[in-house]
Amino acid sequence: MSHFDIFIGETVGTALLILLGGGVVAGVVLKRSKSHGAGWVAISFGWGFAVLTGAYLAAGVSGAHLNPAVTLGLAISGGTEWSDVPLYMASELLGAAIGAFLVWVTYMGQFKAHLTDPEILAAQPAVEGMVDQKTAPKAGPVLGIFSTGPEIRHTVQNVLTEIIATFALVIAILTQGLNDEGNGLGVLGVLITSLVVVGIGLSLGGPTGYAINPARDLGPRIVHALLPLPNKGGSDWTYAWIPVVAPLIGGAAAAGLYNVAFK
Amino acid sequence: MSHFDIFIGETVGTALLILLGGGVVAGVVLKRSKSHGAGWVAISFGWGFAVLTGAYLAAGVSGAHLNPAVTLGLAISGGTEWSDVPLYMASELLGAAIGAFLVWVTYMGQFKAHLTDPEILAAQPAVEGMVDQKTAPKAGPVLGIFSTGPEIRHTVQNVLTEIIATFALVIAILTQGLNDEGNGLGVLGVLITSLVVVGIGLSLGGPTGYAINPARDLGPRIVHALLPLPNKGGSDWTYAWIPVVAPLIGGAAAAGLYNVAFK
Amino acid sequence: MSHFDIFIGETVGTALLILLGGGVVAGVVLKRSKSHGAGWVAISFGWGFAVLTGAYLAAGVSGAHLNPAVTLGLAISGGTEWSDVPLYMASELLGAAIGAFLVWVTYMGQFKAHLTDPEILAAQPAVEGMVDQKTAPKAGPVLGIFSTGPEIRHTVQNVLTEIIATFALVIAILTQGLNDEGNGLGVLGVLITSLVVVGIGLSLGGPTGYAINPARDLGPRIVHALLPLPNKGGSDWTYAWIPVVAPLIGGAAAAGLYNVAFK
Amino acid sequence: MSHFDIFIGETVGTALLILLGGGVVAGVVLKRSKSHGAGWVAISFGWGFAVLTGAYLAAGVSGAHLNPAVTLGLAISGGTEWSDVPLYMASELLGAAIGAFLVWVTYMGQFKAHLTDPEILAAQPAVEGMVDQKTAPKAGPVLGIFSTGPEIRHTVQNVLTEIIATFALVIAILTQGLNDEGNGLGVLGVLITSLVVVGIGLSLGGPTGYAINPARDLGPRIVHALLPLPNKGGSDWTYAWIPVVAPLIGGAAAAGLYNVAFK
Repeated sequence: MSHFDIFIGETVGTALLILLGGGVVAGVVLKRSKSHGAGWVAISFGWGFAVLTGAYLAAGVSGAHLNPAVTLGLAISGGTEWSDVPLYMASELLGAAIGAFLVWVTYMGQFKAHLTDPEILAAQPAVEGMVDQKTAPKAGPVLGIFSTGPEIRHTVQNVLTEIIATFALVIAILTQGLNDEGNGLGVLGVLITSLVVVGIGLSLGGPTGYAINPARDLGPRIVHALLPLPNKGGSDWTYAWIPVVAPLIGGAAAAGLYNVAFK
Repeated sequence: MSHFDIFIGETVGTALLILLGGGVVAGVVLKRSKSHGAGWVAISFGWGFAVLTGAYLAAGVSGAHLNPAVTLGLAISGGTEWSDVPLYMASELLGAAIGAFLVWVTYMGQFKAHLTDPEILAAQPAVEGMVDQKTAPKAGPVLGIFSTGPEIRHTVQNVLTEIIATFALVIAILTQGLNDEGNGLGVLGVLITSLVVVGIGLSLGGPTGYAINPARDLGPRIVHALLPLPNKGGSDWTYAWIPVVAPLIGGAAAAGLYNVAFK
Repeated sequence: MSHFDIFIGETVGTALLILLGGGVVAGVVLKRSKSHGAGWVAISFGWGFAVLTGAYLAAGVSGAHLNPAVTLGLAISGGTEWSDVPLYMASELLGAAIGAFLVWVTYMGQFKAHLTDPEILAAQPAVEGMVDQKTAPKAGPVLGIFSTGPEIRHTVQNVLTEIIATFALVIAILTQGLNDEGNGLGVLGVLITSLVVVGIGLSLGGPTGYAINPARDLGPRIVHALLPLPNKGGSDWTYAWIPVVAPLIGGAAAAGLYNVAFK
Repeated sequence: MSHFDIFIGETVGTALLILLGGGVVAGVVLKRSKSHGAGWVAISFGWGFAVLTGAYLAAGVSGAHLNPAVTLGLAISGGTEWSDVPLYMASELLGAAIGAFLVWVTYMGQFKAHLTDPEILAAQPAVEGMVDQKTAPKAGPVLGIFSTGPEIRHTVQNVLTEIIATFALVIAILTQGLNDEGNGLGVLGVLITSLVVVGIGLSLGGPTGYAINPARDLGPRIVHALLPLPNKGGSDWTYAWIPVVAPLIGGAAAAGLYNVAFK
């Protein structure tokens, strides 16, 4: 795998992942969207099929990590060279930022309508149905389209939830090689991993919105901070370290268990 | 692939695509349907499995483009002969028109009940929950079952949204060959592409209703204009160029990126 | 394939199909069920995965027709011996009746609670949200768990809707052999066919409840007529011929098109 | 397959199964969860993809039983050594308990908020929308996140429902070998089995909440009894034998039919 392949696969793949992942939240949250109010089933399947779209593209190019926690887990378990890790992670972050920008382009009219709606501004700074007003006073009304935030702000729980959810994702990816008997891996593995992500969203996404991917959270948060949106509110930087650090711990823990028990 | 195979595969496949795709919108929008009000999750999965049904039939016959934007992308990337492009596109348009007619046959009683309901006529000309009244005065109450329309009428955004959504579809189709290691492509590629379409609907369908396919929008719009439905309202021809031109640009852009970065 | 294999595969497979298919309607319609009110998405996926469960079992035993319209289509297209057709159809009808009986066993407490609820009895004879009271005076309050009925009683439309929906199913099954390049058919075909059924439910089920299978409708209707349920109401025999005859026409038409254009 | 492989595959796999399965119920039931109120479609897909996640991990390690009823069925049909049965079952129970504990860790803030909410305490002891107050006076307000309980308490029906639902699961697993023509089993079998579980949840879960797995019910019930949650209420031990005994009967019956008719 050449450096160019890693760069292009991870950047384009992660951009697609965030375009579709952020897009489903935009469609459900923003007013004047046909999918407004479509609910958690829509969000979970939307993010899972976002993974499918990005990973299906990148699988044959860069191996489709699309997630620094996956890259770290694969490096620890021996599936990826340590020397390639910085390129993987930088490409993932760049792709995530591009994807978040494209979400804004796709929904720009809805963003404007939403952020100038007096009702929504009066209810600020809570993201609609997503962040508790009292505990998250710095979150802007559309931040949830870019980055995650907890329903209940509690550092220990929030960290543990993200560790556990990322652990479930990465151990599933690492052990898929064990099923390989020359039949059914490859593209089928991409499909199943994306359905696992649907499952993690449905099952473990309730408390924090399941970042389970440092690039997925940090890249879009930077874009939120930079975009000149009216009344956009804060980018909640006090929370920003948790969806970066906790998924890396979860990915490393999964690789540790894999090395000890499954390798 | 013979001309007859291209004709029959694309015509029958696209007819099935539009029969099921238009059908799910009819079922959700029209009164006196068991699926009335089933929501955006139903619509997204309905359109995705419509692609699955049409493409599963046509895959082994004509390659299952079912979409002029896909045909254009494949021609630019070298997957389809340029000389076959007119036949592909004409067959897709014909199939789409046939499918839209069959949607009317399937739901004819519901169309009649809906279009003679005083409440719905009083609310004209908005498609139920789908098109903003002020900005779309020409859209009839059942046009959304045939063709797409934007929630917010804004040419630049509407064009960009359709370009981005079609780009995501076509780049996913073009790069699937990169995953081919003699395992998992073919029918599995059809399945994954249809789930990518579910994802595009969930994630990028909110602003314009995701035509992402010139034939899917133009063929049914012509049928809407021709069908002698009572109180059907206008066919919104001022918008009609966007879901034709923008998807072609999106498909060409995807093929351009593919040729430069992935080939 | 021995006669015993055909008998056991079709009987047990169709019983599973109807157990899960009738079961999801029972769960959504009946009071005191955890899935009460889960909606059309639940019903469409429930019926689709009912097909998956029954066909996955029967695929390697009897070829998993589970549906006289499929059997007829395969006989016309040459995939099944005409001499086996009576055994297939009889086994499918027997299995459907067994499955409908098992739905009653599974939900017996809910049936009793529902059929002795004064509110529901006062609303008789309409099936909750499923059949129009004025046009379907003979349908009992739980008949929709067993057999299908139209939202709008209109013989021509009802027949055409069932023909079109069955045509979509059978043409998809008949053409799947065209995709066979030694990769992806077999079990994957079972999976895709079941998702096609989800799509047909979402898209074409609104007007009549998509019987698309004579055994699926007739077998359970007989069980409804025989079961000694209190206040069960009529079995709507005036409608009963449509979901038997129309699917057979649709299956034959699909086989005709297949023989002419795809074989 | 070594004893260590059986132990680690079944323990980690069942822990993942219960983490995601219990997690989706926690997210839907508990207040202050982003997925609160997401409904039965979310729960059915959540449990199905929980099976997918756990079985995908364990398939290549221990064969992915994750369920004593499956282990018993495989032992009776000859797919598993009787001498390995105790280790399988003990590992499954241990894994289920670990998974239930992790659900509590993931949602600990939500548990606390829910169990100290005056409204919810006043409505005790009913699990929100899940257990009938009059008939289930001993069930605590969050027990449904750990273990199953019937909507209508009726021993004969509850036992029969669990037997039938488990029968459908185990016969589908046992007969999947019949589809094996060197194409499509293995990982694809894991995917299809998990969709069968989605279907069983949608279709047969209404009356009892579909334990269909003794370890899935008993392990988490023990954890519920041990966890020092405030106001947690009883663990409903009078019902606890049914989701243990009935699934074992259902699994044995499926193996019996398999041995007689399909082997």
